Amino acid sequence: MVIHGIATFKQWLEQKHFTKIVVIGDANGFAHCLPHVHQVGIIEGLWLEVGVGEKHKELETCSWLWQQLMEKEVDRSALIINLGGGVVTDLGGFVASTYKRGVSFVNVPTTLLGMVDAAIGHKTGINFGEAKNQVGTMSAPLAVVIDPIFLASLPNMELLSGLGELIKYGLIADAPLFHALGSIEMGKDQTVIARCIDIKMAITKEDPNEKGVRRMLNYGHSVGHALEAHAYHLGQPIPHGVAVAWGMVAEAHLSEKLAGFADTDLVWNKINHLFPIPEILYQADLARAIGSYLTQDKKNSSGLIQSALLYKIGQGKIGFNIEKEDFSSSVSWLQQRLLA
Amino acid sequence: MVIHGIATFKQWLEQKHFTKIVVIGDANGFAHCLPHVHQVGIIEGLWLEVGVGEKHKELETCSWLWQQLMEKEVDRSALIINLGGGVVTDLGGFVASTYKRGVSFVNVPTTLLGMVDAAIGHKTGINFGEAKNQVGTMSAPLAVVIDPIFLASLPNMELLSGLGELIKYGLIADAPLFHALGSIEMGKDQTVIARCIDIKMAITKEDPNEKGVRRMLNYGHSVGHALEAHAYHLGQPIPHGVAVAWGMVAEAHLSEKLAGFADTDLVWNKINHLFPIPEILYQADLARAIGSYLTQDKKNSSGLIQSALLYKIGQGKIGFNIEKEDFSSSVSWLQQRLLA
Repeated sequence: MVIHGIATFKQWLEQKHFTKIVVIGDANGFAHCLPHVHQVGIIEGLWLEVGVGEKHKELETCSWLWQQLMEKEVDRSALIINLGGGVVTDLGGFVASTYKRGVSFVNVPTTLLGMVDAAIGHKTGINFGEAKNQVGTMSAPLAVVIDPIFLASLPNMELLSGLGELIKYGLIADAPLFHALGSIEMGKDQTVIARCIDIKMAITKEDPNEKGVRRMLNYGHSVGHALEAHAYHLGQPIPHGVAVAWGMVAEAHLSEKLAGFADTDLVWNKINHLFPIPEILYQADLARAIGSYLTQDKKNSSGLIQSALLYKIGQGKIGFNIEKEDFSSSVSWLQQRLLA
Repeated sequence: MVIHGIATFKQWLEQKHFTKIVVIGDANGFAHCLPHVHQVGIIEGLWLEVGVGEKHKELETCSWLWQQLMEKEVDRSALIINLGGGVVTDLGGFVASTYKRGVSFVNVPTTLLGMVDAAIGHKTGINFGEAKNQVGTMSAPLAVVIDPIFLASLPNMELLSGLGELIKYGLIADAPLFHALGSIEMGKDQTVIARCIDIKMAITKEDPNEKGVRRMLNYGHSVGHALEAHAYHLGQPIPHGVAVAWGMVAEAHLSEKLAGFADTDLVWNKINHLFPIPEILYQADLARAIGSYLTQDKKNSSGLIQSALLYKIGQGKIGFNIEKEDFSSSVSWLQQRLLA
């Protein structure tokens, strides 16, 4: 269930009878967003602050959170509110879904990417070893609270990261949305956000366990994740949305080759117009390096990579089993075009 | 789904197409049960051996298992087989249900208690800190394989531990079953085992998330768990089933007081006839000590303990919210009767 606005969330919460309210967030979230959350009127909440950033989305943080919940005698009828970006909602959702075999939780995403992606997909998870989201659950939040007020103070790079996902929704499911997205500022548009949430929720509902149509949401992500992981490994991290944006361009080319897609240029123009070009894309060895990250991808089954491609703008298609080499050569193509 | 017999499991497995078969078990399970499991014909399985006993049912073991799965590139289309008693099926089920957000698993319980309880309840979990099963998920195994051949080599005390649960099923749902159970050997009876599994599965299906009728399965467990935890704390551990057996006697008395139950003597006679009396039951301070364990119980909501009681033999009743003191006084009653 999506709740629009903090004020509505307050009303919703007043009708419920949770034994305790727990708020999980990081220092950024607590500093910038707590004034808004205080409007909800949580008097005797338990506030649990975790470290900032992806590196804290791991087992040790979970251990600490489980321990805090136990020490404060939080029971199964409590509510956990995850306040923050994807790191916090993924982590907090995993802790909530496993504490005493599952406590209700609500996500309050404070980033654009969180609003249109992480907070609403029923996926929770933490990183393990060097790989992302290797441990987690499929668990639905009781509600997701969307309030654009959180976006007001967001840095441009964060908005851009979310914009990549908005463009993805346009590409796989809504051509007019794709064509409409022409500036970073549009990432703050409430109608656009609501439309993207609708698309994701409809797809998730149709296929909760990611056996079919939901794989469409991974469009651009095979190459995107590999770019992101490789850049991270080299110590030149790039934002998720930027990696996915360029991943979508590479996979548009792949769609042309394997699914009869004819509008690669439109995708190229849109991304090239809105997104910076990460240094890593100019690296000589990139296409080969990318290959080694693809096998770690969890969509991988028996060597081939199950992937979604585009049939046309606004219409994704699932069910492709693609060789690693095809991804690598789409990255080579991307590089040649950038250098042209 | 219940699969009766290893031979049927072999046929079932031959029709499936898992990318890899992983078997999780402990040294005991691998020593005593592997010959039977080899009949299944797993050629290229991954065999993961965990430490023996409850103390290994914790986060560090999970970490090791997740790591092994990742290193061996086990993907989401693999199958994990948990071979062992409740410790292994709880632990292995938790690891399977959280690895890459959920891999299919099959439980092959090798103890009576596992067959009629742990392996079929959709509950997975590990201990955390001093408390049992504080971290876990509600996850259904793809199948549970029941084969009494595993019971042949089981020590009497293990059979007895399962027998406590069999008697519980009789008490809450099947009077003839309760009256029929007259010897330890009956724990090996395939018809009795199948009947108990049916009862548990019907109740679990009706109420997968333990919001209602499923709480009936906790009959005897509030006092039972407290006895078990207290005995463990004192360094005189008693088997789960024995603790629950005496817990059922105490809660029969409580049922008399709060639910109009009239057959406390029948329960007393049955348990006293079949079960040893743990030393701890004679301890002077017991009733008070028990109280401090009850609040850690996860069924606890806002101080009161949600519990199931007996209306008559073969008919449990849920929905009681019971004061800690009532449990303590039922334990006092039990002690006085033992000393009489």
